[in-house]
Amino acid sequence: MTEKTRTFDVLFEGTARATGKMRNEITVTSPVLGEPIDLATDEGGFHGGDDTAPPPLALFTAALTGCLMTQIRAFAHRLDLEIDRLNVKTTLLWRAEQTGNAPYVSQPVRFGFDLEIDSSADAEDLVALIAHARKGCFIEQTLAMGVDVHHRLKVDGAWVEV
Amino acid sequence: MTEKTRTFDVLFEGTARATGKMRNEITVTSPVLGEPIDLATDEGGFHGGDDTAPPPLALFTAALTGCLMTQIRAFAHRLDLEIDRLNVKTTLLWRAEQTGNAPYVSQPVRFGFDLEIDSSADAEDLVALIAHARKGCFIEQTLAMGVDVHHRLKVDGAWVEV
Repeated sequence: MTEKTRTFDVLFEGTARATGKMRNEITVTSPVLGEPIDLATDEGGFHGGDDTAPPPLALFTAALTGCLMTQIRAFAHRLDLEIDRLNVKTTLLWRAEQTGNAPYVSQPVRFGFDLEIDSSADAEDLVALIAHARKGCFIEQTLAMGVDVHHRLKVDGAWVEV
Repeated sequence: MTEKTRTFDVLFEGTARATGKMRNEITVTSPVLGEPIDLATDEGGFHGGDDTAPPPLALFTAALTGCLMTQIRAFAHRLDLEIDRLNVKTTLLWRAEQTGNAPYVSQPVRFGFDLEIDSSADAEDLVALIAHARKGCFIEQTLAMGVDVHHRLKVDGAWVEV
């Protein structure tokens, strides 16, 4: 039997306003969400913020880690593998280069996951499961493939691509 | 005068455990954070979760949006530009391809920011500011450059690169 291949789109939108010194308040909506979700980021005092919310990179660390873990459990179910325990250690290292006090340029250096899985499945099946999970994880796939983010600025009431 | 160029590293680590049906609890640490930050992700019922926390893609939307907005304000300060108001609309679209009920493969389709900035600076300076902010934003630079995420699985007590 040939199984049918289908595609589906996943859209997430954020509506955000800068408040406080470094705080940002972001309302996230998506057709896959029941209700809008209100989130916020801030920075500590060393970066000019008031520390009222996690910094963006802390949310990113949780998002990337949670995304892979969710796919591991969702796909284990599809592949009939039992997962009794799943623990992950995530290490994300960036480097930035700065001349004087000019705006700096950042780059990723090394991103890694250390995965501990208790399962009755053998190691070979778990390795295949991880391979599926990283291909299915929307965030990790975006990192692997790269994506150009488009920016538009409103100038005198009209959107200008920048 | 030639100004000195320096590099600095930024490290974020997550220690995560799967709990509940689809909930993940992630403790984020970093040398730039005072205290560890506890975050969580979950999924709605349609994806087998209990909806106890935002899904990973909601945290990702807030992280990416907050990262760019933080850099816009931080670099405006360095470039002596005044920002009176900063509002952002973020649109992130992915597509996934699935055969039957097999694990699907996802990919980014279009990521975009619409930026509204009230400022006494002229549009040209704001465009230059946005260009600096996207180069400085750790998350957007990672998306633009792409990064291979490494995975290790603990097998019989030893770490195996997978």
